[in-house]
Amino acid sequence: MASEKCFAKGSSAPGLVAKGQIRLYSMRFCPFAHRTRLVLHAKGIKHDTVNINLKDKPEWFLKKNPLGLVPTLETSSGQVIYESPITCDYLDEVYTDKKLLPADPFQKAQQKMMLENFSKVTPYFYKIPMGKKNGEDISVLEGELKEKFVKLSEDLVNKKFFGGNAITMIDYMMWPWFERLEIFELKHCLDGTPELKKWTEHMSEDQTVKATMFPTETYKAFYKTYADGKPNYDYGL
Amino acid sequence: MASEKCFAKGSSAPGLVAKGQIRLYSMRFCPFAHRTRLVLHAKGIKHDTVNINLKDKPEWFLKKNPLGLVPTLETSSGQVIYESPITCDYLDEVYTDKKLLPADPFQKAQQKMMLENFSKVTPYFYKIPMGKKNGEDISVLEGELKEKFVKLSEDLVNKKFFGGNAITMIDYMMWPWFERLEIFELKHCLDGTPELKKWTEHMSEDQTVKATMFPTETYKAFYKTYADGKPNYDYGL
Repeated sequence: MASEKCFAKGSSAPGLVAKGQIRLYSMRFCPFAHRTRLVLHAKGIKHDTVNINLKDKPEWFLKKNPLGLVPTLETSSGQVIYESPITCDYLDEVYTDKKLLPADPFQKAQQKMMLENFSKVTPYFYKIPMGKKNGEDISVLEGELKEKFVKLSEDLVNKKFFGGNAITMIDYMMWPWFERLEIFELKHCLDGTPELKKWTEHMSEDQTVKATMFPTETYKAFYKTYADGKPNYDYGL
Repeated sequence: MASEKCFAKGSSAPGLVAKGQIRLYSMRFCPFAHRTRLVLHAKGIKHDTVNINLKDKPEWFLKKNPLGLVPTLETSSGQVIYESPITCDYLDEVYTDKKLLPADPFQKAQQKMMLENFSKVTPYFYKIPMGKKNGEDISVLEGELKEKFVKLSEDLVNKKFFGGNAITMIDYMMWPWFERLEIFELKHCLDGTPELKKWTEHMSEDQTVKATMFPTETYKAFYKTYADGKPNYDYGL
């Protein structure tokens, strides 16, 4: 399961997916693929990982998924699944051990509504660093992000995690962006939402979160190459 | 179940949701709410409908759903569910008769990927009519829409419907926009995709589609009031 150097245009395709396993096409630092990595780890699913050079995608990968997106899953029978929440739900349905989504339809709907709400948060993790890089005033954007955090916090009242007192799917769906707060210099945006800050602390103690985490220094170095337009997807390998 | 005149700001809230029933907050001509209406009808779910004046929303509705969106579902125990695909999945899970989503996780994932793909189609149903109204050249937008239709058609190869040879959830998720093709003068955009055109014909024969349909003249009249900035949500009542 060790992550390996990324495959780029011109590369030969990796071998077939082993029987009884599943393959994740990923990019080591991608927050969307991070969701699927968390679910694979939390559920203890046997898998291999093929990292993709997203700036220079292999032809064979575009044949499997013409959108060229990560995360993409591939089964040993050649079924291809993409879009991060779809990959995670698929894994939770196929691998019935350690269910991450609640069985109750309303609780499941609640997680989907929270996820929809959260989808309005993620663009700020792109817009704010880009604004900063271009020397723009980012105070309005930061204010908006703080407001969204206040909204998120409402779902944590009297709860340790978003789905209750144990980690469930929705926590893993949100976590990758919070793991990157410090790198994007957005940690102060949590100051007005102590519940959310506490949640990040609880999350940091989770074994799966720890196992899939990169050191801040590694993220910083990668995102510097990314901001410079020359992402080093293999940084640290 | 008869649809009734919409509730606006200042109105008194409707009575409680009856035991054993579910309530749909809707707007009669909204394509997103149409999805939920299709699922409620297809599954024969006992429900009542409360129509909302979307330009002038009731205070009591904003308390139930601060986003003020339709469709919104409310159960007799006061649970509130919104976002059209979430409402439809919820209904399909709670009411186990006539399942619309496939049980197989991969087939379900396929429907979700098609839906994600389709979400890039719906904005054209807003952008093209608006562009026309403003006297802009809409040929580029129409070209893009036709391309998206080609992409959609690929999922209909050797199949009558998007999920196979019977109607399933994904067909109902897409249908509302196709029912409005003529009103938005976009029917010719189907000319290059005979499979998709054939699909619209098969869909038109479905009992549920027929039962939830409005006559083209009614749509035209409503959308005229909408384009003029004074939507008559009760048109035809």
